[in-house]
Parts: sequence; C-alpha cells; structure tokens
Amino acid sequence: MTTMETLGARAKSAARPLQTATTETKNQALLKIADALRENCAYILSENEKDLEAGRKNGMAPSLLDRLALSEARVAGMAKGVSDVAKLPDPVGAVLSETTRPNGLKIQKVAVPLGVIAVIFEARPNVTSDAAALCLKSGNAVILRGGKEAIHSNTAITKVMRDALRETELPEDCVQLVEDTSRESSTALMRLNGYVDVLIPRGGAGLIRSVVENATVPVIETGVGNCHIYIDKDADIQMAVDITYNAKTSRVSVCNAAESLLVHKDIAEKVLPPLKEKLDEKNVELRGDEATRAILPGIKAATEEDYATEYLDYILSVHIVNSLEEAIDHIYRYSTGHSECIITENKAAAEKFLAEVDSAAVYHNASTRFTDGGEFGFGAEIGISTQKLHARGPLGLPQLTSVKYKIYGNGQRRE
Amino acid sequence: MTTMETLGARAKSAARPLQTATTETKNQALLKIADALRENCAYILSENEKDLEAGRKNGMAPSLLDRLALSEARVAGMAKGVSDVAKLPDPVGAVLSETTRPNGLKIQKVAVPLGVIAVIFEARPNVTSDAAALCLKSGNAVILRGGKEAIHSNTAITKVMRDALRETELPEDCVQLVEDTSRESSTALMRLNGYVDVLIPRGGAGLIRSVVENATVPVIETGVGNCHIYIDKDADIQMAVDITYNAKTSRVSVCNAAESLLVHKDIAEKVLPPLKEKLDEKNVELRGDEATRAILPGIKAATEEDYATEYLDYILSVHIVNSLEEAIDHIYRYSTGHSECIITENKAAAEKFLAEVDSAAVYHNASTRFTDGGEFGFGAEIGISTQKLHARGPLGLPQLTSVKYKIYGNGQRRE
Repeated sequence: MTTMETLGARAKSAARPLQTATTETKNQALLKIADALRENCAYILSENEKDLEAGRKNGMAPSLLDRLALSEARVAGMAKGVSDVAKLPDPVGAVLSETTRPNGLKIQKVAVPLGVIAVIFEARPNVTSDAAALCLKSGNAVILRGGKEAIHSNTAITKVMRDALRETELPEDCVQLVEDTSRESSTALMRLNGYVDVLIPRGGAGLIRSVVENATVPVIETGVGNCHIYIDKDADIQMAVDITYNAKTSRVSVCNAAESLLVHKDIAEKVLPPLKEKLDEKNVELRGDEATRAILPGIKAATEEDYATEYLDYILSVHIVNSLEEAIDHIYRYSTGHSECIITENKAAAEKFLAEVDSAAVYHNASTRFTDGGEFGFGAEIGISTQKLHARGPLGLPQLTSVKYKIYGNGQRRE
Repeated sequence: MTTMETLGARAKSAARPLQTATTETKNQALLKIADALRENCAYILSENEKDLEAGRKNGMAPSLLDRLALSEARVAGMAKGVSDVAKLPDPVGAVLSETTRPNGLKIQKVAVPLGVIAVIFEARPNVTSDAAALCLKSGNAVILRGGKEAIHSNTAITKVMRDALRETELPEDCVQLVEDTSRESSTALMRLNGYVDVLIPRGGAGLIRSVVENATVPVIETGVGNCHIYIDKDADIQMAVDITYNAKTSRVSVCNAAESLLVHKDIAEKVLPPLKEKLDEKNVELRGDEATRAILPGIKAATEEDYATEYLDYILSVHIVNSLEEAIDHIYRYSTGHSECIITENKAAAEKFLAEVDSAAVYHNASTRFTDGGEFGFGAEIGISTQKLHARGPLGLPQLTSVKYKIYGNGQRRE
C-alpha cells in the first residue's frame, strides 16, 4: 500500500461508523473540536508564524500573506464556525420520498453520507476546520490536502481536531491531512478510486483544470466565476449603477464578483457615465468595446480575452449589445456558469433571461454577490459548484449526501 | 476541430433550444420518432441483418446474437418504449424548493436539463432509441456510441430518429451517433470536456473500468452488481428459498440478479438443503465455503475470487456467517454497492442491515430483482447508478436533470 492508499483505507474505515453515527454524537464531536481550537490557539498561532515567516522569506505577496495569517480573532472565528455547524440540521437519515408499489413493496428514498470526501485547497488555513466540520456533520470522513505555504498551520489545526476526536465516540481518522504537499501527492489523491467517493477542489482556475485533467475519482468542480451583469434597456438607472457597483467592488477576490458588464444600446448613454463615476470611487478599470469607448472615451479597449477572463481584481469588461438575445448569446459564449444578473423593470425580459441563461444562479435585479451558502440560507458551504452533476450552486450540508433506497417487502419476487 | 469536437459542438448547440422546449414540443417529437420507427421497420431489420450476418461470420455466441437480433415485434417494442416516454411527467421546470430570505430575495430551485449526455453502450440496439427518448424528454441532447457489432442497426435507428426530428421544431442534432466504433472514438468521447455534461456508460465491468480510467468528463457509473442475499437466523425458510431462487434465476444476465448467498449458521442446516433442491431445477451451480460443503457435500469450493465475482450466470457463491455483523462485514468487503437483501422476521435485524449496508438498494424480505426504474415507479430508466454522486439506483427522468437557482430581487446588494 502507498502512503496515500493507507490514508484512504483509514478514511474508509472511519467513514463506516460515522455513516450511522447519531446527530448527537456528531454534534458533541463538533463542540469538542471547537473547544479544542480555542484552547490551543497559542499553539496554532505559533505554527502559523512558521508559515508566515517562510512566506515572507519567499517574497509572498501581501494579499496572500494576509489570507495566510491567523490571529486570535481568526482562530476564534474558526471555532465559532465549527460550533455553528453543530447547530445546523443533520441532513443524514432524512426520508426524501416514500412510495408503496402495487405489489406492496414500500420504497423509501433516504439521505445517506457520501462516504469519504477529499478536499484539495489553497491558501487559507481556515478551510481546514470549515471543511472538516461540514464533512463530519454530514457523516463523511474527510481527507484534506492544503497548499505547502500553509502546511504548518494546517498540520497544527488538524492535530488539534484529531486530538479532540480521540475524546469522542468517533474515530480520529474521520479527519486526516495529507502532509506531503508535493504535486505527486495531489495527483495520487485525485486517483484514489475505491477510497474517495468525491473530490472537491477549492481554488483557482489552475487547480480546477488540473483536477479535471487528472482525477479519476468523481469530482465536483467549484468556484470559477466569470459572472455577468446585463443592464437591459428597461433597467432602472440608479438600481443598475448600485447593483453593478456592489457586484464588482464589494469584494473583488471572490468567485461571485461581477467580471463583465453587458449594456443594451438604448440605455448605454444614460447608464454608463454615472456608472463609471461610481466605479471611479474604487478606481475600477473599465475595458470596453468600440461602442462603449465612444460613450466613455479614454477607457482601455477590451480584447476577446478580456471577455473570457475572471479578473478577481478592480477591472470590469464592458460590451454593448443590440438586444436581450445578444446579451444571452454573449453569456452563453463566455460564462463559466456561476452567476449572472439581468437588471430590468420588464418582467418578460427577466423571465426570458432567467430561463435561457444556463448558470447555477440567475438573478433579476440583485447582486451576483449573493451566491453563497450563508446568503441562500444553507448555513455554511464547502464551495460553489459550477458543474451540473450532483449539485449546482452553493454546496451546503444536504449537498454532501447521497441517497439509498430502503425497500420493505413481505416475500415479493419478480416475475 | 476533430470529428468528435464537431459532434460535441453540434450537440451543445442543439441542447440550447432543447433546454427550454415545451413539454408538448418534446412529446410531439417523441411520437413522431415512434411512428417513424414503426414505418421504417423493414429498413431497420435489413440493416440489422447485416450486423447479424457479420456476427455469425465472426462466430458470435448465440446469446449475444439473440441480444443483437431485432424483429418486427422488437422494433414495435422500441417504438412503444419511445411513445411511453412521451406519457411520463416532464421533470424540467419543476420548482423543487422556494424560499424568501430576510432581505426579500426570493430564491427558487428549479430542475433544468443537464445539457449534453453521452451514452456508451454495448450489444443491444434498442438502447439507441431508449436512451434517445429519455434524454429528449428530459431536455438533453444525446451523443450515442454503441458497439461495432451493432453499427448498422444503430446507424439505421439513429437515421430514422433524426429524419423524424427534422419534421419537428427540435434540431435533428438532439440525437447523434458516433459512427466510428474504434477504441479511439470511445476515448475521445470520454474526454470531450466543454461539450459533454455527463457520460453514462452502459455495459460490463470492462467498459466501466475503461471509463473510470480514461474519462475526464463527469461520469455516472452504472450497472455492475455483485448482489447479496443474507438469510438471517430468524428467516422464514420458505420465503428464503423463494426469494433466493427468484433473485438468482429469474434472469441471470442482469445486474440486479443475486450472485452471492450468506447464511446464518443457526439456520444453514434447515434452509440450505431445500434451497439447493429448488436451485437444482435450473441447474444452478453452488460454490461454498467449508461449512456450506459440510451441509451440501459435493458442491464446489468457493475461492476468494468467487465472492468478488458477478457471474451473470447460473452460479451462486455461498458463505456461512456466525452473525448479522459478519454478514454486513462480508458485504462491505465484496459488494459493488448495487442491491443487497436480508431475509428475516426480526425487525431490529432488518433495520440494522438496511442502515449499515451501504448499497443503492437495500431490501428486507424481497428479491433484489426489483432494482429497476419500472419496478420503482420511475417509468423507464437509462441505467442503474452504483456511484454515490448525483444519482444512485435507477436513473429515471428526474435523475437526468440538474438544478438552477432563480433569484428574484428588487435591487438587493450585499454588504
């Protein structure tokens, strides 16, 4: 057995008692983990300091150093995140449907854990406890594989969680970390068939591509969002300005931020100047087509590549369209299927947009920034799925389950 | 563009109008296809004859020739299958949940088509029309890739369906066949990311393995069933004999047939002799462990490999266990996660088995042969999923959909 197979076998074996653990057992374990994170804050911070030191030495960008840095408040936030998951409803065991067939067979469709979930993630060490808590509550063993820049932090957080699990009825192997952060270990995890039931990559486009290319285990693709706002000819100008400003600037580094703006030609002259004025407050760089630049002289020209780019920065591409249909066509061509919004007072136009744009979340008159487990009322999420299989949109606890059919008979045989 | 990419692009482009087609439009197309299959029966049979001739020349086994052979009755059956799908409820557009958030956002979760479904299948030409009908009704374009032994039949059936589609509002590219039956074409289809939303392989363990190894598009694994019957110490002897006989012999070549029998030691002497007598009617070969052979002298010894084998034949492996727990452990080790059954009059034992055995369908006192879309009341199925992601068990129309969130606001922005 390779190291990775050993890890997989341990996870699979831990998943077995975990799949039938009661809600109370799982909640107690989560509260123990939350306590342990708080109690071991100093240890976690000292290990985190090692990562920060290495980061600084390697010339890590300040924004990345900030994502990597833990503090007492951040560790307390992680602990609160874990205990909040204890408060969420347990998705396991829910009877999703029940039917009695003419032959008397009673067929129940019941929610069950997926089994073993692998999570490959980058940068932020808080994902370690967030992902572990969500997997545990949904009855799944988890194999975590973070980036090498956070290895000391992730190892410390995982050690604290496993030590806490040892004081519960659940096996400590419910939570494991891949300590080898080489590219090979990542690939081995992606190919751990027979042990891993689903792999969830959390990271940028490069990670997602690598997973799609290399994984042989089932995958849920997450998080790449080239999100569009379409300002229809019948839009309320002020609302269009406010929503676009919010979707672009409230947090630029996230997948539900707007990256591209489409504007109907009939409203472009009215909406673009005030919008630019508002976006100038945050120094957003606009890149537009010829028609846009005729209205907003001095902005950069947008290339084909701009329309396909998820900037994750204070940049917005702009394209003027002749019709709603043209806007939908543009989105069909460039969207990553995450979140798109139409701003209009015309209900028929809104319904057409919502029906024909094939993305996880389609908005009428609201910011794309709401595509989020918490905002959707799911309580917490492990990522945003942009694929169509299994789950689409925010991945909350119910999305971390599968189903099983329980069939009750009294001797039925098939002819 | 490669040939396969052209096929993919055509499917993707056909999927766009199809995803918003009305139920009536789709049903009319299905009825047109059903009519066309009936009207072109002679043509289909003459093309099928070419495949049969080639099969006979290549020494194809009689059972395979039988699966390949069409007749007027079989073509009529295919046509009826297609028109039956028209009668099933349309899963697309169903509002699966609706919630209004404290900020006033109304969030609707709506069923939408997956997009483009690829189906790789072996042998039976009727899969061509079955799969096309289910995909069409659920709003999905389909790319079919059958085996080379049925290429004339599949090409003829697809041509008839596409000609029929040309007389409807739907694009003929809603249904396409990969005419190149080389191994390379199969692999190219498995890696058609950006065009194929899900690949469903329908075939034996070899095909499934190849797909798992090679596919980079999302896959739903189907159909491998090493199904177990466990006769508990508290079983009704006659029921145990009848269910086991039915599960093993009613159709041996299918994935929901029983392949392995577990018997509690306390009931083995009572149940095994009458069971063997019954199975002897169909000349079922038993392969047992030492304890079984002490009760049924003269049967073959079972090897480790026997317990892991899906025979799809008149063979049954037998193993005597000391407890319910031991039966569950054995299933945990050898099962492919398809269907397993406990026969017992003890409700607590039944509930323990149904909770702890992690298979798509778990039965109490009924034959495993019921794991089937029709028997579950789904109307029709495109296969039986044995994976946990997306859908598990019979894949009916609702399982061929994804979801989208439609969010209605009035200017909401996120803080």
